[in-house]
Amino acid sequence: MLKRHLPILSWLPHYNRRLCSADLLAGVIVTVMVIPQSLAYAILAGLPAVVGLYASLLPMLVYALLGTSRTLAVGPVAIVALMTGAALANVASPGTPEYLEAALVLSLLSGLMLIAMGLLRMGFLANFLSHPVIGGFLSAAGLLIAVSQAGHLLGLEVEASGLFPRLAEIVSGLPHLNGPTLAIGSATLLFLVAMRLRGKQALRGLRLPPSLADLVTRTGPVLAVVVTTWLTWWLDLAAQGVAVVGDIPRGLPPLTLPGFELSLWQSLLVPALLISVVGFVESVSMGQMLAARRRERISPNQELVGLGGANLAAAFSAGMPVTGGLSRTVINFDAGARTPMAGIFAAAGIALVTLLFTPLLAHLPIATLAATITVSILTLVDVPMIRQTWRYSRSDFSAMAATIALTLVEGVEAGIIGGVALSIGLFLYRTSRPHSALVGRIPGTEHFRNVVRHDTETASHLALLRIDESLYFANARYLEDLVYDLVATRPELEQVVLICSAVNLIDASALESLDAINARLKDSGVTLHLAEVKGPVMDQLKRSDFLDAMTGRVFLSTYAAWRELAREPE
Amino acid sequence: MLKRHLPILSWLPHYNRRLCSADLLAGVIVTVMVIPQSLAYAILAGLPAVVGLYASLLPMLVYALLGTSRTLAVGPVAIVALMTGAALANVASPGTPEYLEAALVLSLLSGLMLIAMGLLRMGFLANFLSHPVIGGFLSAAGLLIAVSQAGHLLGLEVEASGLFPRLAEIVSGLPHLNGPTLAIGSATLLFLVAMRLRGKQALRGLRLPPSLADLVTRTGPVLAVVVTTWLTWWLDLAAQGVAVVGDIPRGLPPLTLPGFELSLWQSLLVPALLISVVGFVESVSMGQMLAARRRERISPNQELVGLGGANLAAAFSAGMPVTGGLSRTVINFDAGARTPMAGIFAAAGIALVTLLFTPLLAHLPIATLAATITVSILTLVDVPMIRQTWRYSRSDFSAMAATIALTLVEGVEAGIIGGVALSIGLFLYRTSRPHSALVGRIPGTEHFRNVVRHDTETASHLALLRIDESLYFANARYLEDLVYDLVATRPELEQVVLICSAVNLIDASALESLDAINARLKDSGVTLHLAEVKGPVMDQLKRSDFLDAMTGRVFLSTYAAWRELAREPE
Repeated sequence: MLKRHLPILSWLPHYNRRLCSADLLAGVIVTVMVIPQSLAYAILAGLPAVVGLYASLLPMLVYALLGTSRTLAVGPVAIVALMTGAALANVASPGTPEYLEAALVLSLLSGLMLIAMGLLRMGFLANFLSHPVIGGFLSAAGLLIAVSQAGHLLGLEVEASGLFPRLAEIVSGLPHLNGPTLAIGSATLLFLVAMRLRGKQALRGLRLPPSLADLVTRTGPVLAVVVTTWLTWWLDLAAQGVAVVGDIPRGLPPLTLPGFELSLWQSLLVPALLISVVGFVESVSMGQMLAARRRERISPNQELVGLGGANLAAAFSAGMPVTGGLSRTVINFDAGARTPMAGIFAAAGIALVTLLFTPLLAHLPIATLAATITVSILTLVDVPMIRQTWRYSRSDFSAMAATIALTLVEGVEAGIIGGVALSIGLFLYRTSRPHSALVGRIPGTEHFRNVVRHDTETASHLALLRIDESLYFANARYLEDLVYDLVATRPELEQVVLICSAVNLIDASALESLDAINARLKDSGVTLHLAEVKGPVMDQLKRSDFLDAMTGRVFLSTYAAWRELAREPE
Repeated sequence: MLKRHLPILSWLPHYNRRLCSADLLAGVIVTVMVIPQSLAYAILAGLPAVVGLYASLLPMLVYALLGTSRTLAVGPVAIVALMTGAALANVASPGTPEYLEAALVLSLLSGLMLIAMGLLRMGFLANFLSHPVIGGFLSAAGLLIAVSQAGHLLGLEVEASGLFPRLAEIVSGLPHLNGPTLAIGSATLLFLVAMRLRGKQALRGLRLPPSLADLVTRTGPVLAVVVTTWLTWWLDLAAQGVAVVGDIPRGLPPLTLPGFELSLWQSLLVPALLISVVGFVESVSMGQMLAARRRERISPNQELVGLGGANLAAAFSAGMPVTGGLSRTVINFDAGARTPMAGIFAAAGIALVTLLFTPLLAHLPIATLAATITVSILTLVDVPMIRQTWRYSRSDFSAMAATIALTLVEGVEAGIIGGVALSIGLFLYRTSRPHSALVGRIPGTEHFRNVVRHDTETASHLALLRIDESLYFANARYLEDLVYDLVATRPELEQVVLICSAVNLIDASALESLDAINARLKDSGVTLHLAEVKGPVMDQLKRSDFLDAMTGRVFLSTYAAWRELAREPE
């Protein structure tokens, strides 16, 4: 019981020196690797770069205590940072104390919601983000992030928000771009792309083992940060208009207390919910994937608690909303982390960095960070997935297309909400006109098949109607129409059997429709029967008066109904 | 084709004197009977009483041309009037020209929406109002209406809106009630209740035939109007504080043009949609019921056009939103109407009334009208239905209870929207944790049943898993968990067969989950098969790469899978 709520207890007692040395190495590597992205994502959210470091410190520690994934690394991630920036821009201006304050409130709300969802076992809510919606959203968000970074890469101050205003401002600002910034930005971009595409191959040429080659490839951003920082300091490029991170206060994150202002809480409620759910989905699917590789299991509901705790920690230590990040987790996994202790080591490492080395980051150009973001998020734009969805299902594709269009045009919140609403609507629409078939007997067998597709034996006074869907409010009226049409077009009909082999539920609306069908058929002298009603459905029907009122019987199988109702052919 | 869009063409050519005399009688009876309720519902909506007459005139005529029901009578009805009043109170004050204007805009919007829904064949939207939601809403609306009339019955001017403020104001106003008003109101109320409960019996005692007795019983409100109007005039009760209808301009309704003010249109958009859908559901279910009694059919999509036309007519003739009314339709049906010509006669009759007899209505006490409303709407409160729903399904009941509570506390719009959202949410929740069963072979047969409920033959290396639900985004992850748990708990497992006899759909999210399951099982050395995949589902799967990647096969039947995969027991 205690173990379930404090997963650290399940591995700490068995901790040994072998695990420790593996975790220590991973912790050191993660510390170095995540610095650039932590700074970058804070800037993406419109926050001071140091907030990204703070948000990688205490939250990582708390997740190590509460989370069930052995290798997940928690911190600021691209999508959540984008959503955070969009949410905060609605309530304050970047650079103001109110903006920082709102980031804390957002983390707090998100943390409380995640914990509540975890304790109430409501992880299933995440299922409503269908794959097409998530995929479409991530692709569109990738584009949005790329555009948001274009200004930094060109040395332009872009004020506009929204995709098209931003693009317009960038285009109209092109004549005023800053040369040195563009040089740093594009050089970093080219270097990082080359590392991604060719780095592994080149390193293998140097006879490095594959896993080490992988890891070295990932040091690209760190190298770029070191080199461009040094260059900027050496050439004093800041004086030539290259935007840099600037002075970062040295020391551990201050303890912060998110304020309670009702109107602020209200306006951040929906964004916090969306950030929580999207962050959770991203984190938990990655966690499951990695756990599976080592035959471990994670508990989605406890993951909610772990991520919620991490966000609370961010709220009280000058951070921003966090979740399990793809790239930092993969680095951790590849670096050989075995237990959450690796996260604790990494947190300690980042604490050391904030204590001692922040002055070194003052000359780090923003353009370098923008280039690292741009390269890492372009993998989010998943064109093959979009193509596959188009091929597989137009309905799923339309939900995806709507999500992409809404996200690009109306922003991240409208994109997610619209996509979810459309997926639900399309599902309900599909189930509201269920597939149904009149079936007949395959001669000489007990099998009954669609009369249209097979050569079957039928009787003109008997209709065997199979409904391939649960009966509920959205298709109750459709069922009525179906039966009435049947009766209206076949005057010789005396018996109707509804075959319920695919009916998993009959709700109160469908029950009323069955009642109405029964009464109407009775008036026309037609008897209504049911067949192959499933156990749970039958149990529920017994709690109503329908079975008493029904003119016919409930048959266990279609064959039993046939034997009873079909006259022997003469 | 023309007949489909102008249903009048399907009956007018065969019109004869016999039909005509039946319709004429019904038209006269309807004219007399609907006057009190038309006035009453206009007042319920906060509009001048005469608006109710206007709204029973042209709309009835237009519906006769466009509607498919032979006997439906269109005009102001209680629920729609209540919703109209609630919507208008948000944008204007009763008694102002803006209020009247908003009523026209509301009719216009509602008419346009209904016609659009009809032309786009979107009548299925009405299905999303499940029976529990509609039932709960009508019950709660009945209570709201009763409370809204209580002030009129007591002679109190109630200003507050909302159930509880209104009740509080009535209670605190009790010492100031108007004696003569209370006398008229309560006498009418008692008389009408007595007519309902005992009238039919008493009249049958006078040897009247039952159908005539029915009709005479329904004249109660007309009698009450005549008597109380005469009394009020004779005793000059208006001088003693009895509120009366007052002067009504004589003449046909004026031609009106609803204004176009963007902000007004925007704020009436949602109410207009809800009024349209609720009115349509009420009207079409009644129309279907009556059509069935005479073996006629109505077309829901053409009904939308007919009701939409009626609302447009109301918008251009100083009316208010209308729909097919229960009591006026039943009067029409019982009075022997055979074709929509009865409605045309009734419209002519009401035109005559507005031309000649409106001065007679000046002394009609509002309390009399309030009493007629109260008696007729109390039938909306459907306690047996609420009890049945509780017994049949807690889930449906909770949607109903939420609808009732929200309608009473937050108003009609919140009630409907909340109820619909909750029904959809509950349905999705139910389908997100589908029923599933491990099945085994009933020895010696080709039948496979739940191993828990039946004595079956199984094989330890083979799991036959039947999923009783379509696979889609809401349960895709659940399916993954189900299979992984199975594999984790049965190390000797080599073959998994998913039996898809109840799977009517596999969407893109579920496809990705199947892909993931396949890959994960492959890693564990377990083969994944499918069985009993339905035709349409199989067609769709063939458009993806899943079938190529799947480690196992697709079997036509569970038995075929068993024969192939189960080793013979030794």
